[in-house]
Amino acid sequence: MPSVDLNADMGESYGAWKMGDDAALLDIVTSANIACGGHAGDADVMAATMRIAHDNGVGIGAHPGFMDIAGFGRNRMSVPRATLQNQIRYQVGASVGMARSLGAEVRHLKLHGALANMASEDEGLARDLYEAALSVAPDLIVMVLSATAQQSAAEALGCAWAGEIFADRAYNDNATLVDRSLPGAVIHDAALAGKRMVEMVRAGAIITESGKHIPTRIDTICLHGDTAEAVQIAAAVRSELEAAGISLAQFKGHRA
Amino acid sequence: MPSVDLNADMGESYGAWKMGDDAALLDIVTSANIACGGHAGDADVMAATMRIAHDNGVGIGAHPGFMDIAGFGRNRMSVPRATLQNQIRYQVGASVGMARSLGAEVRHLKLHGALANMASEDEGLARDLYEAALSVAPDLIVMVLSATAQQSAAEALGCAWAGEIFADRAYNDNATLVDRSLPGAVIHDAALAGKRMVEMVRAGAIITESGKHIPTRIDTICLHGDTAEAVQIAAAVRSELEAAGISLAQFKGHRA
Amino acid sequence: MPSVDLNADMGESYGAWKMGDDAALLDIVTSANIACGGHAGDADVMAATMRIAHDNGVGIGAHPGFMDIAGFGRNRMSVPRATLQNQIRYQVGASVGMARSLGAEVRHLKLHGALANMASEDEGLARDLYEAALSVAPDLIVMVLSATAQQSAAEALGCAWAGEIFADRAYNDNATLVDRSLPGAVIHDAALAGKRMVEMVRAGAIITESGKHIPTRIDTICLHGDTAEAVQIAAAVRSELEAAGISLAQFKGHRA
Amino acid sequence: MPSVDLNADMGESYGAWKMGDDAALLDIVTSANIACGGHAGDADVMAATMRIAHDNGVGIGAHPGFMDIAGFGRNRMSVPRATLQNQIRYQVGASVGMARSLGAEVRHLKLHGALANMASEDEGLARDLYEAALSVAPDLIVMVLSATAQQSAAEALGCAWAGEIFADRAYNDNATLVDRSLPGAVIHDAALAGKRMVEMVRAGAIITESGKHIPTRIDTICLHGDTAEAVQIAAAVRSELEAAGISLAQFKGHRA
Repeated sequence: MPSVDLNADMGESYGAWKMGDDAALLDIVTSANIACGGHAGDADVMAATMRIAHDNGVGIGAHPGFMDIAGFGRNRMSVPRATLQNQIRYQVGASVGMARSLGAEVRHLKLHGALANMASEDEGLARDLYEAALSVAPDLIVMVLSATAQQSAAEALGCAWAGEIFADRAYNDNATLVDRSLPGAVIHDAALAGKRMVEMVRAGAIITESGKHIPTRIDTICLHGDTAEAVQIAAAVRSELEAAGISLAQFKGHRA
Repeated sequence: MPSVDLNADMGESYGAWKMGDDAALLDIVTSANIACGGHAGDADVMAATMRIAHDNGVGIGAHPGFMDIAGFGRNRMSVPRATLQNQIRYQVGASVGMARSLGAEVRHLKLHGALANMASEDEGLARDLYEAALSVAPDLIVMVLSATAQQSAAEALGCAWAGEIFADRAYNDNATLVDRSLPGAVIHDAALAGKRMVEMVRAGAIITESGKHIPTRIDTICLHGDTAEAVQIAAAVRSELEAAGISLAQFKGHRA
Repeated sequence: MPSVDLNADMGESYGAWKMGDDAALLDIVTSANIACGGHAGDADVMAATMRIAHDNGVGIGAHPGFMDIAGFGRNRMSVPRATLQNQIRYQVGASVGMARSLGAEVRHLKLHGALANMASEDEGLARDLYEAALSVAPDLIVMVLSATAQQSAAEALGCAWAGEIFADRAYNDNATLVDRSLPGAVIHDAALAGKRMVEMVRAGAIITESGKHIPTRIDTICLHGDTAEAVQIAAAVRSELEAAGISLAQFKGHRA
Repeated sequence: MPSVDLNADMGESYGAWKMGDDAALLDIVTSANIACGGHAGDADVMAATMRIAHDNGVGIGAHPGFMDIAGFGRNRMSVPRATLQNQIRYQVGASVGMARSLGAEVRHLKLHGALANMASEDEGLARDLYEAALSVAPDLIVMVLSATAQQSAAEALGCAWAGEIFADRAYNDNATLVDRSLPGAVIHDAALAGKRMVEMVRAGAIITESGKHIPTRIDTICLHGDTAEAVQIAAAVRSELEAAGISLAQFKGHRA
């Protein structure tokens, strides 16, 4: 029987500002990508989110990005490579320390926002960032966007990794995401999102808009929780997978 | 033969801005209090400073403070206690992670600026902050201002601690520092600073302006390096101690 | 026929984070206190909020506070007085400039959060802050918490000011607010809030919990919009005032 | 008799961190580009720098950049265009307000760092940024890098502008700067720097490394003050110009 992990970004509130319904998501997902104070999150938010994840048996991941709170890590920035590596070390270290203070541990790494996009296009960058994270926490499992330069980097590095696909995004035939500005790029129909995931997990492949199958590891499915609709889709994906006999469990990292 | 540690704050440059002559200090001190990105320091500065400290055999300390770069941690802030604890965890975690990535380790903790001042007046606050740091790194030795509420807190907590006095500040009869605005409060004469430290280390006591002896642990002496004059004083203190047959070595923490 | 102004804090979103329902409030109030990027707000949020206010004929106010985004300006900070004055100048200048770029203008000033609280207790501080703001924009009307040190400061300074009371807070007999932790301190009943305001505006006095009347200028009533409930209360206060024949209009500043 | 302006970036200290010798520079230059709190500078630094500039009769300029203190505005960032415009409005507004509070005024605008570099390559960007600044302060004179897209943008906009060349940088034949990594790119010889400037001002042309003359407006010469050497070069350039009978005076903006 196939098994898959469900992940979502969270811990992205900041100071007086709330974002997303983390409590609801933490009843749905099996892995949580928790912001590290670089693009979002602060010490209180990290602690509170990690605590609930730990209590719920959800795997805790560090979710570092560009250190740009004002821009939420969405701006591409020409930060020197060595500085980026140190910023990853800093954020992962803070994350690991916070988890330890709660009796928990950081299990995986997932890059955020513009930095993640850049790393999915540039194997050298991805590799440098993963190496930096692993220099702090050697047992981290790196979550990669399946079939992108992120995956190649993890394979080249020989580190433990898990491959991710998106529940609510359509794919092009080259495994990239359909541009958000195009019709059908974002899936708003919860039932449809769930059915697609069952199909892809069973096929062991990304199924593109045109129907093409791109065989790839599908260790985890990315869900969103920033809107009420997003939480509904997340819950629906979980229900469809369970109804289809696919068990939900934290991914195990594997090597190249 | 008595032995003492020499410590200084460093790693307080930030981005394009340099502060202090850390390289010079790292040839003088045996312990370095390295900023954690809260009041000063950034990921690059932390990494670079830790690397030199590690190469020189200087003990690395985490030096967290209020998260207020613009104010350099010098403003007292009414941050809620639980938030302060999380901010300490965050900064210590980042510090521990950065050190690990370099094959080094964080050995001690020293509070910075306004937060240190508040903790030296409020045992409950000091204790809460130390507990937070130890929840991340249980083997940390806490550096306390000798004979203040910081020391009482460490004793009450039963953690490993080391007592610190200042090389360049005059003391009142109640072990507090003479206010900076008063004549003689800050010692600018390098030879005098050195002689005082020899005297106090031998006596095992703070010697106040009036000549009173306040017996206390003197495990480490705080030096400064923010000006060329300060580096000269630091070097002079080291020379005087060595000339007097006092060996210089990293402090060992002791309990209550 | 009496007239009164309705004001609310807004423009307190920040980057990716939304706060409050400014659009709804801007259909209710006659004056808007718009964050200046110190405790909240950013350049985009300021521009967008000012534009709607201007289009709706709502008076635009600068709402500066401690420069502490992470703490939302709620932490008291021991920032030196001259620095605080420059920070007020900076924020008011940014506000005035943004308004001008939209063909609008900043009409009033209202202090935010911990800084406002401190100024309501310390006439000297309030006066220094108001002077700083007026050095940038001499025609500003200063909005003061009626019957506090803020009012005394404005009177002493001889600047134009307007007195403010709260729609949803109970008052002690000395004109201070009942502590939030006490029952009845915050009024959650929209109809009640409205009736109280009609009563106070007609009486020209703050009416305390015990029923005591404290005669004072009531130029403007502070509403909130951070929750759906708050917006309902705001709308109810407006309706009650209109039903009672009290006209709603921007305050006119008056001197001592 | 020809006349030229001398400008330098300053007010780039931040909180506890000092940068450059602004006091020395303010005895040499006729125009000061003062950071606005975006990439450097804070409210105190702005106020102090503007005050000395005003006292010395030096023209005050707003020097906005990317809002990235940690990166000193040196990182290129993919900030949306409308956001960049609002950030320019914000910074220019703060600058104008601070100057007004001192009885001074902001006379010109000069872009900083990565944003300036991007604007020198992209006329549309430069134009949008200049328009944003002028929407706050319509009388600003825009300082442009002569013979770049910045100049084209100012001409297209029809705003008042002044053309700038560098005292200490060698030029390629297409008017761009020789890459810093190449020998001779940066001129460290104070006497040489001065002689080149006299030659270029007299010629009314940029003279490239190969000796080619590129006729262009030379309204102002950019000096640096971040090192002791830089201040010496600045002083030498001033002396050489004066010795050559070229008078030093604030530029007058001119249109297209």
